[in-house]
Amino acid sequence: MLKRYLVAPGPTPVPSEALLAMAMPVIHHRSPDFLPVLGAAKKGLQWLYQTKNDVLILCATGTGGMVGSVNNFFSPGDKALVINAGNFGERWTKICNAYGLSLQEIKKDWGYTVRPEEIEQALRHDPSIKGVFVQASETSTGVYHDIEAIASVVKNFSGTLLVVDAISALVAHDLKMDAWGIDVLIGGSQKGLMLPPGLAFVGISEKAWTFAESAKCPRFYFNFKKERESLAKNQTNFTSPVTLIIGLNECLKLLQREGLENAFERHRRLANATREAIKALNLELFSKESPSNAVTAIESPAGLDGQEIYKNLREKYGITAAGGQGRAKGKIFRIAHLGYADTFDIITVVAGVEMVLKSMGHPVKLGSGVSVAEELLME
Amino acid sequence: MLKRYLVAPGPTPVPSEALLAMAMPVIHHRSPDFLPVLGAAKKGLQWLYQTKNDVLILCATGTGGMVGSVNNFFSPGDKALVINAGNFGERWTKICNAYGLSLQEIKKDWGYTVRPEEIEQALRHDPSIKGVFVQASETSTGVYHDIEAIASVVKNFSGTLLVVDAISALVAHDLKMDAWGIDVLIGGSQKGLMLPPGLAFVGISEKAWTFAESAKCPRFYFNFKKERESLAKNQTNFTSPVTLIIGLNECLKLLQREGLENAFERHRRLANATREAIKALNLELFSKESPSNAVTAIESPAGLDGQEIYKNLREKYGITAAGGQGRAKGKIFRIAHLGYADTFDIITVVAGVEMVLKSMGHPVKLGSGVSVAEELLME
Repeated sequence: MLKRYLVAPGPTPVPSEALLAMAMPVIHHRSPDFLPVLGAAKKGLQWLYQTKNDVLILCATGTGGMVGSVNNFFSPGDKALVINAGNFGERWTKICNAYGLSLQEIKKDWGYTVRPEEIEQALRHDPSIKGVFVQASETSTGVYHDIEAIASVVKNFSGTLLVVDAISALVAHDLKMDAWGIDVLIGGSQKGLMLPPGLAFVGISEKAWTFAESAKCPRFYFNFKKERESLAKNQTNFTSPVTLIIGLNECLKLLQREGLENAFERHRRLANATREAIKALNLELFSKESPSNAVTAIESPAGLDGQEIYKNLREKYGITAAGGQGRAKGKIFRIAHLGYADTFDIITVVAGVEMVLKSMGHPVKLGSGVSVAEELLME
Repeated sequence: MLKRYLVAPGPTPVPSEALLAMAMPVIHHRSPDFLPVLGAAKKGLQWLYQTKNDVLILCATGTGGMVGSVNNFFSPGDKALVINAGNFGERWTKICNAYGLSLQEIKKDWGYTVRPEEIEQALRHDPSIKGVFVQASETSTGVYHDIEAIASVVKNFSGTLLVVDAISALVAHDLKMDAWGIDVLIGGSQKGLMLPPGLAFVGISEKAWTFAESAKCPRFYFNFKKERESLAKNQTNFTSPVTLIIGLNECLKLLQREGLENAFERHRRLANATREAIKALNLELFSKESPSNAVTAIESPAGLDGQEIYKNLREKYGITAAGGQGRAKGKIFRIAHLGYADTFDIITVVAGVEMVLKSMGHPVKLGSGVSVAEELLME
């Protein structure tokens, strides 16, 4: 009997409250039973997004939310500025290309973040850029782009929308949609929100809705205007993923009981303990600046394959973390501290890393990372 | 305590086997734990689809499968022939329009089906039509289009694909994808497959894959070539909806234990008993020919509002059936016998209809429909 631990950056563990609620008999999405369920989810998401705007609920992975955020606000030929600092930045590039947007990229080495001044410079140079596309937390490299500072730049350009993929950042980082002026904010169910995969969320500012009026990319499944009309009636445009939305309300209740500031602080505390413990093992973070509070990316020590560390964690100790993606494959491994995570999840995974590295012949003093984590987590 | 009964044409009740399996701790979609799960689902769907072709699994409602079946095989300006005989036929029209296809429709009065000769005539008149789009079961009117006969027409036109929305027909009707020559066959999770909403399935013939090579509609979230490459590795292109796929395997196991022919026969038997019981109450079927084995659409008796019948069933007796959609709203109500349904689901709903009609002042001899259903269900 090998007990299993899930510390991947999505899907993340789902609390029993949600698992059991989702195991209840299915109800009909157009019936009076379901309408208040969707109404509660709608309000809860506005709370989580810190917004008075609509937050759409889509039956899709987070990527569906990203696609909808391109094809609902832009037209072929529109100029787009993509911050490409990792695997998910590259996804913005691919989506914008798929819909024929005219693209320029600010490319950053993996592990680094964009400077808001770089975005300002690009927008000043060409104020006809209609959209700036960025990740909040770039899951592939474990960095957090400074969304507050980026928003304070973009909001000065009335013809430009700021579109933020917050799929792995939501709940892990404070993202004040209205106060900062984020135009489009995308989340997913299987990350900080502690649900199985299957829902995407998109918060949309009034400024973005005006862009939707003239956007000409083809759309049908992701049709935000129709979703907005449905949402006003506590419905979704197509069949609602009823079980996931029932689970969503359970998770929102847990977060509301904790409080939003406390949830952010918990993620900050867990992330910090993880990073310091990892450094105490003489390992290097892959994120060279502004590390994400959702996931820690760690360079594999010289001579060790990151995928082997991932594999040993899983096979020897039942811990499912993550390897590297794209060009980082083999060079890193990643540990999430995201969603339904607390003190002893960090202790477990740091201990697991120590034991795996030692078993792979890497010099590690057992307990040296754990003791640092304990000390920080006692604070 | 009002016990609840779900007899809507999707979502349909989910067996406990699936509900409990989906309540297990979440696993990671790229981990070795999940790959055999997806492998089993892949094989099970091929069995259900009666095909050797790939059956893609998408994180979307059935409509997402319909959209992908337009934008992966066709280009703007391509000629399309839509069979529009109800609300979901109209959906084909809207999707083809959204992607700029050049459209002609065969429109049928609601409650009627297309004649295969009409399709043959249209294709002979213009063999450059690249796609014929039809429903198997048109959920809004309760009719079944003769897919076998339609396929035998379309397969003579080498430049034309037959695209079948079988979202509500799958499991309720025998659909021999390979033997009949269906090119694209779309299913959804929350109907005959007895799962919550959230998955779409698309079976794709080799002929259709050749169309995909030159198709120019923009696509990213629904990218069937990428899904096919992922499926070969027992993965999905984006994050897999792991819980739903785990549930899918449970439901496929139940169906495999029953046997495909027995499942079709069960649906035929339940549908037939429902229709005969309804006729015994002197009610008229809305489907004037070829009634669907998934759902029975019933005209509200003169002077009664179909929505009121739906409402009374729900509020007085806890039975969630369905009202009418679009132009049929108020004129009909609908009863599904789809998925996890058996003898006493039919007895329950027929009894409920008798009691509701009587309470609404309509002349009904209580038990007169039930007795007919009993007799037919004893056979």
